[in-house]
Amino acid sequence: MAFRFEIIKKDHFSKARLGRIETYHGSFSTPAFLPVGTQGTIKSLTPEELVEVGVEAILGNTYHLYLRPGHQTIGRLGGLHQFIHWKRPILTDSGGYQLYSLGGLRKISEEGVTFQSHLDGSHHFLTPEKVVEIQRALGSDIGMVLDECVPYPSSYEYVKASTSLTTRWAKRCLDVRHDADPALFAIVQGGMYRDLREGSAQALVQMDFQGYAIGGLSVGEPKSTMLDILEATVPFLPENTPHYLMGVGTPEDILDAVMLGLDLFDCVLPTRNARNGTLFTSAGKMSIKQAQYNEDERPVDEACLCYTCRNYSRAYLRHLYLANEILSSRLNTIHNLYYYMNFMRRIQEAIRENRFLDFSKTHRSHPNGREIENLVRNHTTFVLG
Amino acid sequence: MAFRFEIIKKDHFSKARLGRIETYHGSFSTPAFLPVGTQGTIKSLTPEELVEVGVEAILGNTYHLYLRPGHQTIGRLGGLHQFIHWKRPILTDSGGYQLYSLGGLRKISEEGVTFQSHLDGSHHFLTPEKVVEIQRALGSDIGMVLDECVPYPSSYEYVKASTSLTTRWAKRCLDVRHDADPALFAIVQGGMYRDLREGSAQALVQMDFQGYAIGGLSVGEPKSTMLDILEATVPFLPENTPHYLMGVGTPEDILDAVMLGLDLFDCVLPTRNARNGTLFTSAGKMSIKQAQYNEDERPVDEACLCYTCRNYSRAYLRHLYLANEILSSRLNTIHNLYYYMNFMRRIQEAIRENRFLDFSKTHRSHPNGREIENLVRNHTTFVLG
Repeated sequence: MAFRFEIIKKDHFSKARLGRIETYHGSFSTPAFLPVGTQGTIKSLTPEELVEVGVEAILGNTYHLYLRPGHQTIGRLGGLHQFIHWKRPILTDSGGYQLYSLGGLRKISEEGVTFQSHLDGSHHFLTPEKVVEIQRALGSDIGMVLDECVPYPSSYEYVKASTSLTTRWAKRCLDVRHDADPALFAIVQGGMYRDLREGSAQALVQMDFQGYAIGGLSVGEPKSTMLDILEATVPFLPENTPHYLMGVGTPEDILDAVMLGLDLFDCVLPTRNARNGTLFTSAGKMSIKQAQYNEDERPVDEACLCYTCRNYSRAYLRHLYLANEILSSRLNTIHNLYYYMNFMRRIQEAIRENRFLDFSKTHRSHPNGREIENLVRNHTTFVLG
Repeated sequence: MAFRFEIIKKDHFSKARLGRIETYHGSFSTPAFLPVGTQGTIKSLTPEELVEVGVEAILGNTYHLYLRPGHQTIGRLGGLHQFIHWKRPILTDSGGYQLYSLGGLRKISEEGVTFQSHLDGSHHFLTPEKVVEIQRALGSDIGMVLDECVPYPSSYEYVKASTSLTTRWAKRCLDVRHDADPALFAIVQGGMYRDLREGSAQALVQMDFQGYAIGGLSVGEPKSTMLDILEATVPFLPENTPHYLMGVGTPEDILDAVMLGLDLFDCVLPTRNARNGTLFTSAGKMSIKQAQYNEDERPVDEACLCYTCRNYSRAYLRHLYLANEILSSRLNTIHNLYYYMNFMRRIQEAIRENRFLDFSKTHRSHPNGREIENLVRNHTTFVLG
């Protein structure tokens, strides 16, 4: 079995862990952020550019790839890595979240989920077994079980029944998994109810998954609720498996979750924000469309050494954005992903040196303060290393 | 004066010439094709990618850059090269063609052109002197005079009066040109009337321009008419200046025009076609959206060594196109520009070796025949060189 997870260092002052995940397509360090490649591409970038900004693993969407071009097509073309020209690890979700997003277009039964394609209205039926089969055809390194993501808010009874269904589905996924299949991660559900989360985690842990995700968060609940649920759930997950917080999030969310023992993250935030002209910088968020940047010769972030900041002015980026040019999405995405990847590397270094809480505190209170110096140092290491 | 044009080799069997243009931002070989960077970017590509596909010089649109972000803004930011991060030669048009495209939104007088912006309806007034000033602020290497591009068809009287106006405007441009300004090219007009073309050329040649363009072609007239006009015009242009056919065109148009003594070309064809999913290959044009490519593992062109063909299948390119992904435009544009740049290099080599007519004939009759071998050879030289 190609999959392996190793904890390299535990922080002395929090539950943060520095780890390493090994897969058939290479290894990557955790805590890790996986950019989202919805339709077989991290929007606007090539794989070479992803490597250049420091991306080590990406996420692919089972739901989207199943509908178009189809998992069998991708399978016949040699799998997702070959199809999209990405040689490093790929994690695929199960489609559970996309099905949840379809709302009225889906119908859930014990057997699986009936839904209509958002592309052409065609009818489909996904079961736990089918989802494993799809991810096998895609050839992902890490696959996810089919789950039901419940809306927020939902009644205790509804969530209890749904969580129990998710657990039964997880078992069915595990039962049809082959040895050569992608590593399989379970997904803890349970809405915003601590006892249901605990029950979900305990039931799933009794089966032998290679990793555990926490799903159904960041769906509209208050930030404090999310942290409360994380705090109630993580202690029930096996320490020696990766802990994956699905669909999260902002740099600050990631800091909180790492502190509570989470290892993996994915979110469209850096890439979607980029296309909307919102850039992450060491001084906070920047909206590049603002008139104040009209003749601003400076790079987006003077502490950043990404391709965009090394070569282009705020004025040019503003112009490209206003002119609706494709290059705008590209240059902004490069910058935001570089920011995120560099951020994760700094988290990893902080854990290694037992200064994660300090790093986290400093990041929050002085985003433009004394971290700049470290930032420049780390950027340099990053580029040269 | 930084501008210089040198003829390196004349074809023994046609009027084709191999030349070299030197500018302040470096030199490039002719016959040359300049991709169009309408709004300060060759749509979807970075300057580094342009260099990689073999682009030596690009075109910028005065009309678009004047309106947004404004020539003064670009001037204050260090000029167009600095603004867009392109270190090689830039030719800017005068806006004449864009004003022609505005149709009813423009009004022409002896003094200049009044028009409404296509962006916000604001009113503007461009004169020959203003157009020189704009191109000075942009810092282009080669600028164009303001001209009136006449619709096809137009009456003899209308074209005669218009051509005479274009000639007077050319003189006014030359009168305000400073020594340090961009090299200034005149534009021969005269519609589809051979005697008016001849008259236009003779009048302009009496002034001392650094190059001569032929405008107002490829505006809907039959192909044979365009060639007839080129044949009637080129002999009146000074041999020791570059001859520029504006807005043209297909590979076959370029072959015809090179044969008649043209040196420079620009067109949105390869880049716009790319975004529409139409690709140039050694076997002719390919529409990547076709269902037959659904599971086609081959590259777009098996004889091509561009980044796209080296790394991606037709199936993936079709998927990206159907999914409306940004990467589709990028990969297709890389391929089409590589095709064009390689095509121009093969033209240059053919002229150098006195086999241009043979090359031209072979290209037309056997696009997928014995040229393939040469193509592969040239591609290899190109990549390694």
